[in-house]
Amino acid sequence: MSPETIQAFALAEFPVVEPHDNLVELILKSVEQSKQDLKDNDILVIASKIVSVSENRIVNAIDVKPSQKALEIASKNDFDPIHVELAIRECVEVVRTEGVLITQTSTGLICNFSGIDKSNAPEGKYILLPRNPDSSASQYLKSLMNSTGKKLAIIVTDTQGRPWRRGSVNLAIGCAGIAPFKHNKGKKDLYGRVLERSTVCQVDEIAMLAEPLMGQAGKRVPVVIVRGYSYSASEETAKDINRPKHEDMFR
Amino acid sequence: MSPETIQAFALAEFPVVEPHDNLVELILKSVEQSKQDLKDNDILVIASKIVSVSENRIVNAIDVKPSQKALEIASKNDFDPIHVELAIRECVEVVRTEGVLITQTSTGLICNFSGIDKSNAPEGKYILLPRNPDSSASQYLKSLMNSTGKKLAIIVTDTQGRPWRRGSVNLAIGCAGIAPFKHNKGKKDLYGRVLERSTVCQVDEIAMLAEPLMGQAGKRVPVVIVRGYSYSASEETAKDINRPKHEDMFR
Repeated sequence: MSPETIQAFALAEFPVVEPHDNLVELILKSVEQSKQDLKDNDILVIASKIVSVSENRIVNAIDVKPSQKALEIASKNDFDPIHVELAIRECVEVVRTEGVLITQTSTGLICNFSGIDKSNAPEGKYILLPRNPDSSASQYLKSLMNSTGKKLAIIVTDTQGRPWRRGSVNLAIGCAGIAPFKHNKGKKDLYGRVLERSTVCQVDEIAMLAEPLMGQAGKRVPVVIVRGYSYSASEETAKDINRPKHEDMFR
Repeated sequence: MSPETIQAFALAEFPVVEPHDNLVELILKSVEQSKQDLKDNDILVIASKIVSVSENRIVNAIDVKPSQKALEIASKNDFDPIHVELAIRECVEVVRTEGVLITQTSTGLICNFSGIDKSNAPEGKYILLPRNPDSSASQYLKSLMNSTGKKLAIIVTDTQGRPWRRGSVNLAIGCAGIAPFKHNKGKKDLYGRVLERSTVCQVDEIAMLAEPLMGQAGKRVPVVIVRGYSYSASEETAKDINRPKHEDMFR
């Protein structure tokens, strides 16, 4: 493998994760079953679904009574009223309700239905996003680095649609041990001129790279290892990816 | 390498591409210099910049006289009037002019300044996007498959900003030999229920995966090989990624 090679591979299939499961233990077990070792600078990409479930972010449909507002949004769009109600409860702002239900969650993420999922959830249940994916990533990282003695990074991902472009993609909603951005400011272009600004969202790029291995429908490979990618850490986290309202022209 | 491993590696550094260069010849030479072979199902990810230059999509600043409209947009945002003028000429619709200049190009792509670049362009010159990146990809693919006898695919990429999320990412603006989308419709979820719809934009995901290897500032690695990714082709092309206006809630 040349030094300029990035590799991504899936860990062995997981059991179905249950509330209060210890994800770090499950990951270490899966690494062992995959006959792999974690190496310095490996990035573990973790599907938010298993983070949510282990944190018991599951709601029973029968416990939810849709509000008048939820009923109205559901009715005009032919949406599930309970799904709408939960999306409203989980958000700090409703951004758009025509044909979509775009909201902003408490971590700043702008997404469909506050990221609440019905597919891959047990019948009659809804899975909410992790309450604070950056903080979850940070906890797992500490524990994994303690257990393995390796310098690692973690990215928690969720699949989302996008304005302007069809088809969903995997996005980073939490990270630890890796900076969300790669800043090229001050570097020189091909013609020797200094770039004024050029910021790449590297954790989103790595999230996307992991998605094909995670698969979507019914696959149980919620953890992907990315190896060979050079990165550094920073004070910023995935929360900083969300544009503040004043710099967002499309809300 | 396990069958579930995706690999991406950069080809040896390119010369600076000049107008009318034969990109396929340059790519094959670079593959050889990299001591690599192209294998069946390899995906070649190509930065749009070298496609543009080889197609001579270069404009001299001194040949451009900004219109009144361009001068107004430039003045209110402190933009370069020539950059604005070219963006207007290259687009079919101006989408937003407050703090950004978002346009839709003739292929349907919604992007900043019609994707016209000043960095990595010779002084006093502007590089336009390829006129039809799907068609360019298709030509290269035919030629590369003829030369190598391998079944390949091509994705042409460009780096773009995004609404809602900070930091730019690499996107697919042209493709050939690979379907833009992976459709999960009809597949079953973890609990055995059939998914109604779930469409992933796989060419965007692969574009992103390649970006870290291409780098941004002054690196001359415009071609990345992605290996180990399972895909099929379709009638659809990258043009189909752009949402038609009636289904786009954020324009």
